[in-house]
Amino acid sequence: MLKVGVIGTGMIGQDHIRRLTTVLNGVAVTAVTDVDTAVAADVGGRIGATVHATGEELVGDPAVDAVLVCSWGPTHEQYVLAAIAAGKPVFCEKPLATTQEACLRILDAEAAHGSRLVQVGYMRRFDFAYRALKMAVDSGEIGLPLMMHCAHRNASVPPFYRGDMAITDTAVHEIDMVRWMFGAEVSAVRVLVPRHNRNGGELEDPLLLIMEMADGVIVDVEVSVNIRYGYDIRGEIVGENGTASLGGPAPVAVRRDGRVGVPVPADWRERFLQAYDVELQEWVHAISLGGQPLGPSAWDGYAAAAVSDAGVEALRTGNRVLISLVDQPKLYAEAAG
Amino acid sequence: MLKVGVIGTGMIGQDHIRRLTTVLNGVAVTAVTDVDTAVAADVGGRIGATVHATGEELVGDPAVDAVLVCSWGPTHEQYVLAAIAAGKPVFCEKPLATTQEACLRILDAEAAHGSRLVQVGYMRRFDFAYRALKMAVDSGEIGLPLMMHCAHRNASVPPFYRGDMAITDTAVHEIDMVRWMFGAEVSAVRVLVPRHNRNGGELEDPLLLIMEMADGVIVDVEVSVNIRYGYDIRGEIVGENGTASLGGPAPVAVRRDGRVGVPVPADWRERFLQAYDVELQEWVHAISLGGQPLGPSAWDGYAAAAVSDAGVEALRTGNRVLISLVDQPKLYAEAAG
Amino acid sequence: MLKVGVIGTGMIGQDHIRRLTTVLNGVAVTAVTDVDTAVAADVGGRIGATVHATGEELVGDPAVDAVLVCSWGPTHEQYVLAAIAAGKPVFCEKPLATTQEACLRILDAEAAHGSRLVQVGYMRRFDFAYRALKMAVDSGEIGLPLMMHCAHRNASVPPFYRGDMAITDTAVHEIDMVRWMFGAEVSAVRVLVPRHNRNGGELEDPLLLIMEMADGVIVDVEVSVNIRYGYDIRGEIVGENGTASLGGPAPVAVRRDGRVGVPVPADWRERFLQAYDVELQEWVHAISLGGQPLGPSAWDGYAAAAVSDAGVEALRTGNRVLISLVDQPKLYAEAAG
Amino acid sequence: MLKVGVIGTGMIGQDHIRRLTTVLNGVAVTAVTDVDTAVAADVGGRIGATVHATGEELVGDPAVDAVLVCSWGPTHEQYVLAAIAAGKPVFCEKPLATTQEACLRILDAEAAHGSRLVQVGYMRRFDFAYRALKMAVDSGEIGLPLMMHCAHRNASVPPFYRGDMAITDTAVHEIDMVRWMFGAEVSAVRVLVPRHNRNGGELEDPLLLIMEMADGVIVDVEVSVNIRYGYDIRGEIVGENGTASLGGPAPVAVRRDGRVGVPVPADWRERFLQAYDVELQEWVHAISLGGQPLGPSAWDGYAAAAVSDAGVEALRTGNRVLISLVDQPKLYAEAAG
Ligand SMILES: [Mg+2]
Ligand SMILES: [Mg+2]
Ligand SMILES: [Mg+2]
Ligand SMILES: [Mg+2]
Repeated sequence: MLKVGVIGTGMIGQDHIRRLTTVLNGVAVTAVTDVDTAVAADVGGRIGATVHATGEELVGDPAVDAVLVCSWGPTHEQYVLAAIAAGKPVFCEKPLATTQEACLRILDAEAAHGSRLVQVGYMRRFDFAYRALKMAVDSGEIGLPLMMHCAHRNASVPPFYRGDMAITDTAVHEIDMVRWMFGAEVSAVRVLVPRHNRNGGELEDPLLLIMEMADGVIVDVEVSVNIRYGYDIRGEIVGENGTASLGGPAPVAVRRDGRVGVPVPADWRERFLQAYDVELQEWVHAISLGGQPLGPSAWDGYAAAAVSDAGVEALRTGNRVLISLVDQPKLYAEAAG
Repeated sequence: MLKVGVIGTGMIGQDHIRRLTTVLNGVAVTAVTDVDTAVAADVGGRIGATVHATGEELVGDPAVDAVLVCSWGPTHEQYVLAAIAAGKPVFCEKPLATTQEACLRILDAEAAHGSRLVQVGYMRRFDFAYRALKMAVDSGEIGLPLMMHCAHRNASVPPFYRGDMAITDTAVHEIDMVRWMFGAEVSAVRVLVPRHNRNGGELEDPLLLIMEMADGVIVDVEVSVNIRYGYDIRGEIVGENGTASLGGPAPVAVRRDGRVGVPVPADWRERFLQAYDVELQEWVHAISLGGQPLGPSAWDGYAAAAVSDAGVEALRTGNRVLISLVDQPKLYAEAAG
Repeated sequence: MLKVGVIGTGMIGQDHIRRLTTVLNGVAVTAVTDVDTAVAADVGGRIGATVHATGEELVGDPAVDAVLVCSWGPTHEQYVLAAIAAGKPVFCEKPLATTQEACLRILDAEAAHGSRLVQVGYMRRFDFAYRALKMAVDSGEIGLPLMMHCAHRNASVPPFYRGDMAITDTAVHEIDMVRWMFGAEVSAVRVLVPRHNRNGGELEDPLLLIMEMADGVIVDVEVSVNIRYGYDIRGEIVGENGTASLGGPAPVAVRRDGRVGVPVPADWRERFLQAYDVELQEWVHAISLGGQPLGPSAWDGYAAAAVSDAGVEALRTGNRVLISLVDQPKLYAEAAG
Repeated sequence: MLKVGVIGTGMIGQDHIRRLTTVLNGVAVTAVTDVDTAVAADVGGRIGATVHATGEELVGDPAVDAVLVCSWGPTHEQYVLAAIAAGKPVFCEKPLATTQEACLRILDAEAAHGSRLVQVGYMRRFDFAYRALKMAVDSGEIGLPLMMHCAHRNASVPPFYRGDMAITDTAVHEIDMVRWMFGAEVSAVRVLVPRHNRNGGELEDPLLLIMEMADGVIVDVEVSVNIRYGYDIRGEIVGENGTASLGGPAPVAVRRDGRVGVPVPADWRERFLQAYDVELQEWVHAISLGGQPLGPSAWDGYAAAAVSDAGVEALRTGNRVLISLVDQPKLYAEAAG
């Protein structure tokens, strides 16, 4: 039974605590903390977990084998560094940190430690459909991949959603996904801005993000965040001899009112619920067996930050923006494929 | 240019005249007649065709190479016999005749003539999707066929629609189709009656018609004639190693309101428009080249009547009803496969 | 943490033990037993569970809160009765018992106990697609259901598979499913036998099972157990205004070699893996919360046996066979809907 | 009966002659000519048409009501101008002419004539699926269109196929289609070149063509001309509230070998056979009724040339290339939407 301490008991933290305590196998939540101490006390009380005053204190608790960071983004760096310093595995919700510099400090700390402790919460790698897509590509049945067409659509976004977030919060999932899918880094990005969707007011929406991979694959991503009809994640990989496309959950087809209708998920919770479960279950099992985490690494977190920063610059300037990463520490060579 | 005389200028007759004069190649309508002489005069006048007082007179017109019978069902026999007597090709809308006895008289007359003159208007054999389905089966890619599941759905039927018509007017298309698809006769039928659809009031609707083919294939046909959502014709053939299903016209998919929606045709006109065009175009070309018609024969018309009669008896009695056909005249041996 | 004792550590028992110990939340396997004592010792040793000499001894173990019966069918009755006698919840793999009489003895025992202790392992009720289908029907969006078309297809079956098993082992899943889907009992069955699939040698395969529900819904089920192409479970419910069909897992579509191809599951493990997880997880949660099980009841097990027996008679005689059940004990009134 | 003279009796010319003489209604081919006089004599002899020494002579033949230009591209201008000079309707296969300057000379001549005589052979506007797509967009059901994603895939191309042809011969169909679909001109183009498909040797293939429409819609077009699996034309229009996608011909679905497979057309003939028929039938009917042609105009031919030229420049330079058209003559204002 892996004993996990959770830093941050807000919405995401509480959802992960629900998952760890009522869905997953082989794990217990033994400690919690939050900047809002009342919430932390309430959540901790309900599940019988120790409530700590600070994340650092939680990390030091001997009843904590591994740490789950669900706090506000700007605090991620400090808690991840604390866990590394304590030699404890740490699962950090995305982003790994809010600047490339902070990500690099984490890389340095983990490299100094000498083995992987960090996993970043990019959950698409654990989705059944993306995994089937990757298996189809890796099988060679469509030949070498050349292009990928993606769409990332949300029915709506909250009022505080700003233009940059289409890159940093939304398309960042595709940024991580294509790096994993193709085992290559992104070398350049462009962002094109069509006529705006009036559902989004002044927001620059939709966008067309174009990524050039180091091996020559070109990826286009439609980002539409006010498209009303549902949450729709699509992807088609174009190979030399054919293509492979994401299916998705289509449990039922209804013939009614002149139409065969297949439901679209309402939001990311519905679409990726299972991926979140698999993500943390596999992490729990890997850590419990004494191994390193197998999911997205600190290097992946850093690369996502670098591409994301370039994407924001491309959106603001209209330019093609090149990306150059630092040399990859040996520790991550295998993970990056 | 094949010169066609049309007997019956009601709704179906006018639609075929439109087809012959403005859609098809190599054909002209030179003569018309109808029990309603005013309508015949009006239609004939508009297209410059001779208007005859009777069908027999039209058949005898030297400016008529071939005859199209679109009159009221009970009159089909006499006009088909008149055409055979004149040695002229005749396309008769379904049914060939309203009794098996009448069909047999036509078989005798045609056999006496010595070659095929008659084609009956079962148009599914000319539909692109049914043809693709038959090609898939005949290719052997699913192995020997064992079963077929069909559905024949109408959004609604008019008030004069009675229970027997579900067999004689609706399922009769499946009756002809399976005989053609499997190259075998129907040897027994059953009709099961589920809970009624309240959209149809007292009507026994839907029905489940079960046909046993002479070679052991079993076919089930759902007949639903008040199902509101559209006109939907479906079929899946179960073979030893796989199945083949009818696709259909799905020109567009719309993602809207939480659903991916593909339109269903509104009625048989929309679904089979093209099949009617192909049916008559192929008939025109075959006759113009001096050959025999290649579509459903008088034998097919007789067999459909026999199965249809058995279906009505099965519906009324609840029994499994056996079908025995007369010996097939040599003339039709090839057509029946 | 619910403490479960497992009776029967053969293939199914070991798979459920894997599930309970490495997949599910809130449960531990504390005791095992098997007719093959060596296997029981080996399995028990690996997971640190007490190994009992008999099922009755296991039931009596104070470290066993609830019992999972995975032994040979003919022994189900005795272990279920033992658990009821001990007042312990018992999950029994299908069938509940091998005769209707044995099922009735279990109903009597449970009624005497006064509340539900028994759940039977019909897992389709826990499948995401069947649940979505039931939600669509229950929402009223297709109107009152009138018919259902099903297909249950296996790529192949082992040499010991006999004709009756197409009903008792294969179609029995549809028998339970339609009772749950429509909240009604099956009142009559017929079985039609088409031309045989030569892949199955002498086996009567495929079959068309027709069930009449007490409320007038008619269900047809194609059972094909040697169809080579994969494991395919399909269902379409025909309502007054439309239809609802099972979707399924289609994670990826590959365009290759002249075709858009979507994979079909290889077998029931792949298709229903998740349903088995959900089935037991929900059982664990319900029992842990001190409640009665919510899944298929002993009554459901009895009714499945009665319909299954009638199906076998229908297959052997070619007749329509009526089904009459005993009066339903009050205890189950709610569960049967 | 419209009397048509055909200039150019090569492959396309012969196919159109087959269409006009054996498929379409209300039209006869009365005259032919070709640079290869033997071929012209042979083709003309078979259908009983006058064989002319030159296109100009054919245009002047009083037995020619309308002209169909199917000759080599560089000769299109002279024959179209000859027909305009004679005041006869002329259907010109794409391209209208091989330079923008030549197109402008045709615009001037037609404007001088004062009404439309010219139709250019962009046949996608006549395809049932594109028409259904346009109806979906025009209905407003997805809101204002913002983006369109297209793919134009060929299984293979002949050895003489060069890089520019991916724009001028292949993507030119999408260029015309989007102008018609959105009723707006293309204002800028980019071409991105991913890793090459080794099936095409040195050919720059695939390409990603990006078009910016004057109203802000952005269109991306994948052009893959060696993708082996078939001929696949896809399009999805992204609106404010949803999307609409091209369906296509999918007459049959085969379940076999672990997969549900739907066939993809082998080539453009199979995919667009019907569109070619509709294109010419509608032209015949419009001209026969004494009206102007309703299909793609000389302006459309000019605009396609301008965008196509810009596309070639974009491919060669890697730049975003702006397009500026001459002022649109009043004659075409309506046609351009
Ligand atoms: Mg995440
Ligand atoms: Mg007909
Ligand atoms: Mg089960
Ligand atoms: Mg064309």
